[in-house]
Amino acid sequence: MILVEPSELDADGCVTLRDARGAHALGVLKVTLDQPIRVGIVDGALGTGLVTALLADGVRLRCAFDTVPPRPPVDLLLALPRPKVLRRLWAQLAALGVGRVILTNAERVERNYFDTHLLDPTGYRPLLLEGLQQARDSRLPDVSVHRQFRVLVEDDLDGLTGTATRLVADPAATLPIRHAIHSRPSGVNRALLAVGPEGGWNAFELDLLRSHGFSGVGMGARILRSDTACIALLALVHEALR
Amino acid sequence: MILVEPSELDADGCVTLRDARGAHALGVLKVTLDQPIRVGIVDGALGTGLVTALLADGVRLRCAFDTVPPRPPVDLLLALPRPKVLRRLWAQLAALGVGRVILTNAERVERNYFDTHLLDPTGYRPLLLEGLQQARDSRLPDVSVHRQFRVLVEDDLDGLTGTATRLVADPAATLPIRHAIHSRPSGVNRALLAVGPEGGWNAFELDLLRSHGFSGVGMGARILRSDTACIALLALVHEALR
Repeated sequence: MILVEPSELDADGCVTLRDARGAHALGVLKVTLDQPIRVGIVDGALGTGLVTALLADGVRLRCAFDTVPPRPPVDLLLALPRPKVLRRLWAQLAALGVGRVILTNAERVERNYFDTHLLDPTGYRPLLLEGLQQARDSRLPDVSVHRQFRVLVEDDLDGLTGTATRLVADPAATLPIRHAIHSRPSGVNRALLAVGPEGGWNAFELDLLRSHGFSGVGMGARILRSDTACIALLALVHEALR
Repeated sequence: MILVEPSELDADGCVTLRDARGAHALGVLKVTLDQPIRVGIVDGALGTGLVTALLADGVRLRCAFDTVPPRPPVDLLLALPRPKVLRRLWAQLAALGVGRVILTNAERVERNYFDTHLLDPTGYRPLLLEGLQQARDSRLPDVSVHRQFRVLVEDDLDGLTGTATRLVADPAATLPIRHAIHSRPSGVNRALLAVGPEGGWNAFELDLLRSHGFSGVGMGARILRSDTACIALLALVHEALR
């Protein structure tokens, strides 16, 4: 699938792609004239683009859009991982489907992790778009970065996520995710999953989360790298909500 | 955790580590004299190593072993991904826990993927050990590489995996993994999960798997990259078997 920005479409729904997307259409999809391909508007509807011209360096499409995909029902509260891990994660989070990514400080997050350009929209947005195109989705996750964990949990979290089943991944917890999700109050259809830093949340952080409605959930005794854990846990939450 | 090879231990259970593991003990774990740390024997028991000497370039440990971890109850049949993805996968597969990794050809696997050194034990073994140490496990997955998909499925698979619930990930399937696992015959406690190439299995391959006992299972409509899909699916199979 190819995603276009709203501003790229002219009044007739036509768009000319001369960048990596155009090269992808020519070189990988090997499109031909009049061929329909999947398209989407960033944060908008999905539809079909008809190839109306093959150019030396790209393609021209006439697009028609129909369905607007729903916002993914899971938000992620993640202790900021090291830049190498964060770089790998962005596209995978968008592909798995996350409504909002809330990145936070924690005791075991190193301060210099906050210096990465991967926390600027110019750094992460292309990676999120790559993941969305892979998964054939158009809903860009909202992203926010928080340097004060306590302020985030006590003051900001309710406004950021609204009503949701709150879960915190904890290697010491035995409650499976599906039990936690299935015992939620009726009418609560979203989940907020908290994933700690490589060394885990400290006792204060875990207590603060628990006192703000987070239930500890576990996947067994294995300790996983931050990115592996995020993917595995998000898959389990999505499956339990289906 | 630190893994040692059986041949590295002397008759008293002592081992001197002067390589990356020794540097890790000194620099990351910052061990002190007489401190106990988690150790394991590759493909053997887990236990405790007492620091008996701090050297300029490593540490000496006196180890005692007790529990032998069980073999993970899931095997993976994976269409060989491109080398970049395979490199990322090895450690994550070992960390999640896989009894056997069966890598296979398929129509949509490019032939040159088989040229990578990541299919030699010297290429993948260090990555598997890295994942095991992360997850505090010692059971090295068995690995085999198969260039003929049909021969593998028709002739070799029974001998490689024994009795197991056979599942094939299929974006078109709607059966959730936990339903497929929960409806298995009693006494069958292992699962074999098949994951296709980036473009999917072709119709012949899918039919061959189905006719050899594989049930199609799905995670929803999103198309995931091979490595993301493996991690998500393995998490779901492990959780359903727990």
